[in-house]
Amino acid sequence: MGLIVQKFGGTSVADSEKIKNVAKAVIKEKLNGNDVIVVVSAMGHTTDNLVKLAFEITNKPSEREMDMLLSTGEQISMSLLAMAINELGYKAISLTGLQVGIKTENCHMCARILDIETTRVKKHLSEGNIVIIAGFQGVCEDNEITTLGRGGSDTTAVALACAFKADRCDIYSDVEGVYTADPRVIKTAQKLDVISYEEMLELARVGANVLHPRSVETAKPYRMPMRVRSSFKLDDLGTLIIGVDEMELNKPVTGLACDSSQIRIVICDIEDKPGNAAKLFNLLASQNLSVDMIIQSYARNSKNTNDIAFTITKSDVEKFNALKDDINKILNASNIYIDEDIVKVSIVGAGMIDRPGIAAKMFDILAKEKINIKMISTSEIKISCLVEKQYSEAAAKALCTAFNLDGAKIADVKGDLPV
Amino acid sequence: MGLIVQKFGGTSVADSEKIKNVAKAVIKEKLNGNDVIVVVSAMGHTTDNLVKLAFEITNKPSEREMDMLLSTGEQISMSLLAMAINELGYKAISLTGLQVGIKTENCHMCARILDIETTRVKKHLSEGNIVIIAGFQGVCEDNEITTLGRGGSDTTAVALACAFKADRCDIYSDVEGVYTADPRVIKTAQKLDVISYEEMLELARVGANVLHPRSVETAKPYRMPMRVRSSFKLDDLGTLIIGVDEMELNKPVTGLACDSSQIRIVICDIEDKPGNAAKLFNLLASQNLSVDMIIQSYARNSKNTNDIAFTITKSDVEKFNALKDDINKILNASNIYIDEDIVKVSIVGAGMIDRPGIAAKMFDILAKEKINIKMISTSEIKISCLVEKQYSEAAAKALCTAFNLDGAKIADVKGDLPV
Repeated sequence: MGLIVQKFGGTSVADSEKIKNVAKAVIKEKLNGNDVIVVVSAMGHTTDNLVKLAFEITNKPSEREMDMLLSTGEQISMSLLAMAINELGYKAISLTGLQVGIKTENCHMCARILDIETTRVKKHLSEGNIVIIAGFQGVCEDNEITTLGRGGSDTTAVALACAFKADRCDIYSDVEGVYTADPRVIKTAQKLDVISYEEMLELARVGANVLHPRSVETAKPYRMPMRVRSSFKLDDLGTLIIGVDEMELNKPVTGLACDSSQIRIVICDIEDKPGNAAKLFNLLASQNLSVDMIIQSYARNSKNTNDIAFTITKSDVEKFNALKDDINKILNASNIYIDEDIVKVSIVGAGMIDRPGIAAKMFDILAKEKINIKMISTSEIKISCLVEKQYSEAAAKALCTAFNLDGAKIADVKGDLPV
Repeated sequence: MGLIVQKFGGTSVADSEKIKNVAKAVIKEKLNGNDVIVVVSAMGHTTDNLVKLAFEITNKPSEREMDMLLSTGEQISMSLLAMAINELGYKAISLTGLQVGIKTENCHMCARILDIETTRVKKHLSEGNIVIIAGFQGVCEDNEITTLGRGGSDTTAVALACAFKADRCDIYSDVEGVYTADPRVIKTAQKLDVISYEEMLELARVGANVLHPRSVETAKPYRMPMRVRSSFKLDDLGTLIIGVDEMELNKPVTGLACDSSQIRIVICDIEDKPGNAAKLFNLLASQNLSVDMIIQSYARNSKNTNDIAFTITKSDVEKFNALKDDINKILNASNIYIDEDIVKVSIVGAGMIDRPGIAAKMFDILAKEKINIKMISTSEIKISCLVEKQYSEAAAKALCTAFNLDGAKIADVKGDLPV
């Protein structure tokens, strides 16, 4: 008998009918002869609505009380799912993070899981129960309720799968798998049968909102196979995520992602002397401002000054504005530009590691489309270019065609893998 | 420094504006120099909505999962109230029943409180916090979440007040206190300044929906003074509930209540032999059917048979219908009548104990109004008459006038009492 961990996202449990549908998906896995642990998110827009309520009351809610508030969302959906499974004649029991013993750091709203107790869940499983566990939440000292941050339910599912040595962790949502590109933009984008953790991580970070990156990071060292699949198409196996060493790499580029959540900031005419960049980014870090791409121009003007450009997420723009005076004071910059009309287009592929020329090909394709590149950043398996927002679709389409992302199967699986 | 327990009902915390208002009421008590423990119900119709969701999924939800589901309501309101108090510059912390250690029986949906841990709450109070505690919920073995049944938040508040030896327990809702009669019917009904536990219990049971009877039962042996007051009129002290020995009893009748939630059932022509009544009521008890008034007629007909009449609550009528065949089989009754158009009118007063003639006066007043009495039941401090529903208002008005319930102050307080 195997053990499968299933995770259902908010859209999959958005109302009572959808919860009944999820109950069927769970029972289907149970009837395959497996023990099943289910992790649920909050129903539909529950979390957003709770956040809205909090902000009606205060602009700076206590993080501890936010965790108290938001953790109710998963408690609602898990109890309803247990009822729906019972109604179909199967044993089920729902448990909060505290009741399971999902131990986290003593910190609120973005706690990391430290340890998971297995005794209670194993007992319920051995009694024939389907065990439903609240995603996104844990417990720290003094029975304090913590949450793992947005998208944390994916991480709960993978962490449970690793702790219980599950055969697989299935992440169900309203998407059918991981695509070579956003299918809403590139109509010919193909669903991938398989993708490596590394590629998935790069895609997740550049804005393919399929999986929370932390869940992939958690799965990777344990080689826990994950499936991204749709709760509305139960016969579709979705996309399997496994180690790169378990795959045949047929193509250098696996996927493409566009991220329009960032803005570019350019700080002009900073004196070119050691320590100025450090001052700037320390200041940004002090306000918890995450910076993504960074470019420093080569000082070649008569004033011996540099421009430094970087990108931050749009939601941090207020934080940045509050820092502007300080930046001016410390760096004596001539000007600060904010550019909101940008999009980051990235190509990702574990197969590009040993193949030179992929970056050159990407720049070439964009040039042929007369798309100016504003910034470039690269990692071992990713190349990102910042372009004007108006070219987002044209860039994506041209790159998909050139790198064969609207074609057939991209990577094959070596050997047997859990289905 | 004193300690006050305040409880706010669902209408008092129905939205973010009302929660801010409650925060002010809490801080007002804190500024009086008291430590404050606050108990909250779920916001507005939250509990009803959660129950509705459960019944969309199943007709027979697991009681354990219902507790899991419903306990989220109070967790939402308590965290929001903590935020609202923080926003006004005061320290507050919210705690679930589990976190406090409100230990209950191992039973779901109507658990009784067995014990309350005081260590953690005392620590938070000593650090200057206002401590907000989820009403209605507790915890039993294995960290299982339990609830106390509808209206249980009143009981949570009083139990906490007793456990922490509070000076007073204030129950805030949208009513301004306990009235001599329902002010929506009797426009001249008067708010009582003070009422005894015993009278309050009788009034609560006959349908004055001001307080949950279990809360009054809990307060009584500890002589815990309770105040029923409005969260929308903070300067109004509402009604104080204390021991009857602490009051001057000026009048025999303190209040009047009409209960239209019952129906009358008459079982005709049961053979007059020992054990038949026991059989009937054992059968009703086996289905958890609560019976209120019971009358057995004197067997004086030629067939030597009795009629037995009793009242049950309307919501139990389906349960009763399911038993009808069994009743006919066991008792061989000639007929079973169900009478839905009835109302139970009760007068209550600790002062009637040593004053004969109150019942006679009540019957006389109803007769003068040409209102037929269908059933009568009495306790030491209560007389209830079942009449046709159409006479409900006429009966209430006549009795209020006759017993001076639309007049001035009814009972005075002996000595000093907490304000």
